[in-house]
Amino acid sequence: MTIQERAGGITTPAGFRVAGVSAGIKASGAPDLALIVPDRPASGAALFTTNQVQAAPVTVSREHLTKSGGRVAGVLVNSGCANACTGTSGLAVARASAGRLASALGCPSEQILVASTGVIGVGLQLDAVEAGIGRAMGALARDGHPAARAIMTTDLGPKEAAAHVETADGAFSVGGMAKGAGMIEPMLATMLAFVTTDVSVESPVLARALNEAVASTFNAITVDGECSTNDTVVALASGSSGVTVTESRNYPALVHGLTAVCRTLALMIVRGGEGATKLVSITVTGADSVANARRVAKTIANSPLVKTAVHGGDPNWGRLVAAAGRSGVPFAIDRAVVRVGPVVLFKDGQPYDEAAPRAADYLRGTDIDIEINVGAGGSGEATVWTCDLSAEYVRINGEYRT
Amino acid sequence: MTIQERAGGITTPAGFRVAGVSAGIKASGAPDLALIVPDRPASGAALFTTNQVQAAPVTVSREHLTKSGGRVAGVLVNSGCANACTGTSGLAVARASAGRLASALGCPSEQILVASTGVIGVGLQLDAVEAGIGRAMGALARDGHPAARAIMTTDLGPKEAAAHVETADGAFSVGGMAKGAGMIEPMLATMLAFVTTDVSVESPVLARALNEAVASTFNAITVDGECSTNDTVVALASGSSGVTVTESRNYPALVHGLTAVCRTLALMIVRGGEGATKLVSITVTGADSVANARRVAKTIANSPLVKTAVHGGDPNWGRLVAAAGRSGVPFAIDRAVVRVGPVVLFKDGQPYDEAAPRAADYLRGTDIDIEINVGAGGSGEATVWTCDLSAEYVRINGEYRT
Repeated sequence: MTIQERAGGITTPAGFRVAGVSAGIKASGAPDLALIVPDRPASGAALFTTNQVQAAPVTVSREHLTKSGGRVAGVLVNSGCANACTGTSGLAVARASAGRLASALGCPSEQILVASTGVIGVGLQLDAVEAGIGRAMGALARDGHPAARAIMTTDLGPKEAAAHVETADGAFSVGGMAKGAGMIEPMLATMLAFVTTDVSVESPVLARALNEAVASTFNAITVDGECSTNDTVVALASGSSGVTVTESRNYPALVHGLTAVCRTLALMIVRGGEGATKLVSITVTGADSVANARRVAKTIANSPLVKTAVHGGDPNWGRLVAAAGRSGVPFAIDRAVVRVGPVVLFKDGQPYDEAAPRAADYLRGTDIDIEINVGAGGSGEATVWTCDLSAEYVRINGEYRT
Repeated sequence: MTIQERAGGITTPAGFRVAGVSAGIKASGAPDLALIVPDRPASGAALFTTNQVQAAPVTVSREHLTKSGGRVAGVLVNSGCANACTGTSGLAVARASAGRLASALGCPSEQILVASTGVIGVGLQLDAVEAGIGRAMGALARDGHPAARAIMTTDLGPKEAAAHVETADGAFSVGGMAKGAGMIEPMLATMLAFVTTDVSVESPVLARALNEAVASTFNAITVDGECSTNDTVVALASGSSGVTVTESRNYPALVHGLTAVCRTLALMIVRGGEGATKLVSITVTGADSVANARRVAKTIANSPLVKTAVHGGDPNWGRLVAAAGRSGVPFAIDRAVVRVGPVVLFKDGQPYDEAAPRAADYLRGTDIDIEINVGAGGSGEATVWTCDLSAEYVRINGEYRT
């Protein structure tokens, strides 16, 4: 098995057509509605936000996926409105939108998934969605760019990725697009990602592979520790490549392919985080379990003192150690090691302050690797990605909604 | 029983002399060493950081308090150096410092408590501490101001408070001083507070009362969610007022007196938080327990999206609801209520967007009250205080350590 990351996106795998159009949901007239339509109903799997406040499209997509047994004939995505905290009317609009697309495609409603991103607490206009569906049906094509643009809110640019996987049974592709946390307009704390592949796979196996891929990619990033009401990751498999995946056949190839595309999209989201100037990789080693390693890494990645220090280029290992110490998992300061890039700053209970200038030089870069061994003597290891915290983040999120 | 908050500080209660001097620990020559000396060994109690990385003075004070059975003859505090992550040599300096003060006071070493605040990972110079103790012993007086100044790092000003309590058995006082999170010089994530009273009380009863007072005051504030390596709250009781407190006599009066002083000091710390321009009170009601109410309130209080919205005067209730929804405790959006000052923004599953301009007006103030009923139908209630998140916070903490 070999994997190659390639330029491409959601239509790199065979068997999918997509569209992105302006439906008038955004006042600006920018593209705001996307469709993903497999040539035949695809195997589908999805992961949704764990926030107790769940947007209407999350509720509807979850129901549909269960009812359809994981068959997906179409995915409808809108930007410019989250359809969250909109009560029963919001739910009715989400259901009706799915119904309209189902009519257009000639499939049962439960084979439609819906996703939204935008301002919380504002109603989604069914008229606009209906008109948009009509326009998008006529624009379906093997070009993923318009769709990747239509799901953007304040992202700096579209986020697309693809990978080519060769197995003994033949080659297949994985492609995807995502929407990050731009949030110049407040309340767009929403992460959406759509991943396609042309393997033939049953929905439960696809779900298991997606779970594995997301654990080390989308679930290992943080911009500001805020879990939104709309987070959704959808995977669709068309079967068009002729390669079949089961629990016992080509499963690792599918996981690796999905992971490659999800990681690239996840890192694009972090790089495009609000006000971000640096991509920071936090690796924790020596923990007594992977879960504890991840908990320490997340605590460090969400520490405003660590994020401002990285922003300012300050090799401030005391903040890393203090964050690890408050994370609630075993931490042995006497056996801990702190490394910033190639520079060891703390080891054997001793600071290496003479190395600080070299670490400060390293921190001038835009891709920062930080490694902490927590000294618990275990083999638990995890990596989490985050961005720095800049004054621009405050400016973006402190501006009054207009 | 009546309680009156009064101008005053750590020497308002009878039976204590204090001093604050320059010992040369700070390169600037600013005051950096304080002593608190009861006329006779006092009953003492203390609470320390829960960070697994604990500074040397925390380790030593904890040991001494246990050994002495809660008798305290003197407290030695320095600013300008945290003596944290300094290994065995740091521990030796903390012990030796306590020993020097014990010699000067003619008491056993274990009757001395020590506390430090400043940069992590830098050694504390015993020479400077010794010289400072000598100077401070000669300066002991019934004036709390010099000590309140000597424990400052980058605090905007000294933090002092006092309360006068009348009981059927007579009157007593509670006084205190605290040091907040200035952090213009990185790594000073340290909260220290010292509270005195002139009741006569056994150490275990004082400890229980201090615990109660701290739970709703110092443990209910957050500036940036960072628990430091040096956090320490010490209470001392001299007995000089003639009022005796036991579990069954005047105990509520002591708790209320300690709470009044601790709350005032705690709010001073939040107001003086890095880059803070507003004091924000987050009250959560309707939770199924007090612990869950506090958890929701802490999640909201540490949400960068909520803190930037308050900074920018944006009545962004969606961020409050999203933060509550990810806090991990029961939250019923259909029965939830969000109030900003006197203005209801969300109720019965419906936004009240027409009220947003009035809420925006309210948010122009500097004292902001936010209330969320989580709709779980319980009587659990908690208040947490925080400050807004400004670009100044990023500037302060992003500047390279010089």
